[in-house]
This record gives sequence, C-alpha cells and structure tokens, in this order.
Amino acid sequence: MKPDHIALVIAMNSEAAPLIKTLALEKKADLFPAPLPFELYQGEAAGKRISVIVSGLDREHGVNNVGTQSATLMTYLIIAHLHPDLVINAGTAGGIGEKGCQIGDIYLSESPFCYHDRRIPLPRFDQYGIGSYPSIDTTEMAASLGFKTGRISTGDSLDMTDRDLEMIRSNRAIIKEMEAAAVAWVCRMMDIPMFAVKVITDLIDRQTSTEAQFTANLQLAVNNLRRSILQVIDYL
Amino acid sequence: MKPDHIALVIAMNSEAAPLIKTLALEKKADLFPAPLPFELYQGEAAGKRISVIVSGLDREHGVNNVGTQSATLMTYLIIAHLHPDLVINAGTAGGIGEKGCQIGDIYLSESPFCYHDRRIPLPRFDQYGIGSYPSIDTTEMAASLGFKTGRISTGDSLDMTDRDLEMIRSNRAIIKEMEAAAVAWVCRMMDIPMFAVKVITDLIDRQTSTEAQFTANLQLAVNNLRRSILQVIDYL
Repeated sequence: MKPDHIALVIAMNSEAAPLIKTLALEKKADLFPAPLPFELYQGEAAGKRISVIVSGLDREHGVNNVGTQSATLMTYLIIAHLHPDLVINAGTAGGIGEKGCQIGDIYLSESPFCYHDRRIPLPRFDQYGIGSYPSIDTTEMAASLGFKTGRISTGDSLDMTDRDLEMIRSNRAIIKEMEAAAVAWVCRMMDIPMFAVKVITDLIDRQTSTEAQFTANLQLAVNNLRRSILQVIDYL
Repeated sequence: MKPDHIALVIAMNSEAAPLIKTLALEKKADLFPAPLPFELYQGEAAGKRISVIVSGLDREHGVNNVGTQSATLMTYLIIAHLHPDLVINAGTAGGIGEKGCQIGDIYLSESPFCYHDRRIPLPRFDQYGIGSYPSIDTTEMAASLGFKTGRISTGDSLDMTDRDLEMIRSNRAIIKEMEAAAVAWVCRMMDIPMFAVKVITDLIDRQTSTEAQFTANLQLAVNNLRRSILQVIDYL
C-alpha cells in the first residue's frame, strides 16, 4: 500500500516525544471535545501526512492514559475525525526471551492481535474475549528494514500472572504489551488497515521484574522506536 | 438531580431487550458511523428522554461486544452525539456472598468505581490502573426504592483468578462485573454524572463456577434489571 495519510497511536508521551521532535510535528488543539486528555500532533514526512495521537495525562494521577480503554478511544477519534489510510500502533513492549526476543529489538506485528486477560468461558464469548484481529502483512517491510516480526498479545497490566503467561503462550504470541489489540479491534470495525511497531524493553520470562527492566531500558527502546518509525514511514 | 435526558449503557442485548420492549423504545439507525456494531434505542418515559446504547454483535463471533473497550466507546459516542444529563450503566454482575450479596439482588453503585485487572506497579501508574472514578450518591435513591448499594470492581474476564479476587478485596468492592469502571472513566473525563445499576447473577465466592451460575440465573437477573431501571427512571 501507498498511504497518503498515516495515523500513529502512541500511549506514552515519552514514546512519542522524540518522533514529534524529529519530524517537527505541530500540536493541534480543539480537534477533540475539550475535556479529553489526548494530544494530537500533525505534519508531513516522506511526502505523507502524519498524524500522531498521544494519550496525554490522567487528571488525577498525572500519568499517561496507558492501556486498552484509552487506546480504543484514541483510535476511534483519529479515524472518525481524520480518516487516515493506515493506522500504526507504536510503543514499547515485553518479549519472550526463549523465543529469541532481545532488549531493544524492533518488531512488526504478525496477525492476529490477541488479548491475554479477557477470559470469558462461555460458548463463542471465549473466542471473542481472546480477540484475533488482523495486522497487515509486514513480512516484506520487516525483511527490507532488518526488523523482526512477531505475534502480539495485549492486556491491561504491566506485570503478568501465571494465567496471563498461559494465555500469551496459547495465543502463540512472543510480545506482550498494553494497547495493540484494542487499536486493532477498532481498526477492524472501522475497516482501516493497521499494524504495530513494538520495541522490546523487558523479557517477560526473566527473573528481574518487568517494572525494573522497563525503567532501565525505556530510553534505549524509545530511541529505537523513533528510528524504526521513521524507517517505516520512509518505506511505506 | 432532575435529568431531562438519561442515557443507559448496556453491554448485552439480552439485558436491554425487556426494557426496550416495555418502554417501546425505537431503534435509531445512522447516528454512529456505519461500521460500528452498537445499537441505539430512544423514546420517552416518566417525562424524560431515554437513550439506550447496546453493544451489538461482534461480526466474527456473533456475540455481544462485552467488556471495557466496547463500554468505553459506547459511552463516548452516546455522550458526544446525544449530550445526556446523566449516564446509567446497567447490567448483570457477580457479588461476594460473604458480604451479603444474594442472587437477584439489585445494587446501585457506591463511589469509587475501580478495576481489578489493571496492575501497573510503577509510581502513580499503580493508582491510575486501579482507577477510582466517582458515582453520584445513590444512598437516598436506594433507600427509597429498596435496593442495596455497593462498590463495584471491573475487569475484562467473566471468571476470576486469585489475584483478581485480591484486588477486588483491596478495592473494598463487593460487586464484580465487566464494564462499569470504563463507563465511569469516560463520564469523568466528559464531566457527565453517572451511576450503575447491577443485578447479581452469581456469587463469586461460591464453588460453582461463575459461568454456570451466570447461565442459570441470567433470566431472573434480567427481569429484575428491567424492573429496577423502570423504578430508577421514575424516581429520578
């Protein structure tokens, strides 16, 4: 595909800031109803229109609105108001070390996006809960750019229970994060092609906690994320 | 408060159908962008405008779009398009038997609404993950209508892990369901007052699985839900 207008859905300001700076994207006010915390940045790159939506700050706790509820609403808003040709969910993620993930690795999504924390043991609701939403085929792009590809599983926790890990394995995912399936769900409903770019901050099958690894490796991951998104925009 | 326009956010068609029939609400097409599965019904009751949004069917699995992502988007859409004075999230729920919940009980929400499956062990993100969004004070309404009140905890699974139960207890919630905190989050952002009406289908501290109890008691709960919503609309 040759998209004219690419929308990026990014949960954390720290993940988006280097990209916004490099592309000199301009902050737009007043596109979304006033009380919403989400931030919109727009500009051009490689001959394409680029719109970035970032989750902004929770007014009570002063942290970014990470997770699936916020990702759902951001994705809906950017599609409904701006009609992009393509949505990319970009961010940091955990990876399974025994499946070859390494800190700093850049992954493009393989279909399907699944959830690992929506267990609904009723007929057909079980599969609805797991999700299974399509990614565009990123095989050639990944090969061309020297990135890896992998299946992504989404849940609303940064940490992980044994049951979560069971579900991640049963989803045959190697990457764990907190937004992609929600972005993919909205894109599927709205018939907009999408994929995800995720950079590994932590190995979920290590002894060290996700929180400690996440904090230690965030800067490296954010740098790689900026670089990889620029390469992806150039490629498309 | 004396609302002129009440919006009800209801996840399952089976939960909404008796109410829609009793109030002879009319199905409205074309309010939301075409590919969205949500259904809107409107009419009048007790001198008030009533709008009901129901999640509709997932196109792949043919089941209602239950859970927080769908509840987020439904709540946003009904507020942004219809500007109600009050949002009510109505549905079925699990309750803690040792805290006095019984099958068929009607509960109105106590503040705050919390999540039990968003564990983010980083400073301030931990509290963001748990949530804590306000309900309007339902004490007098509950006393007047003979309903109970209780704190509600939300998660995207029908079943429950030990970790979920720990979080529910730590949230001091006695009711467990799958949408309320997401509805409350959007209402808080959009500055719209809200509360929830939940009818107990299953006791989460019983040996029998939630799924088996849910299936056995759904009809009773749905009847009580219809009756309780009508009483609430009359009261307001």
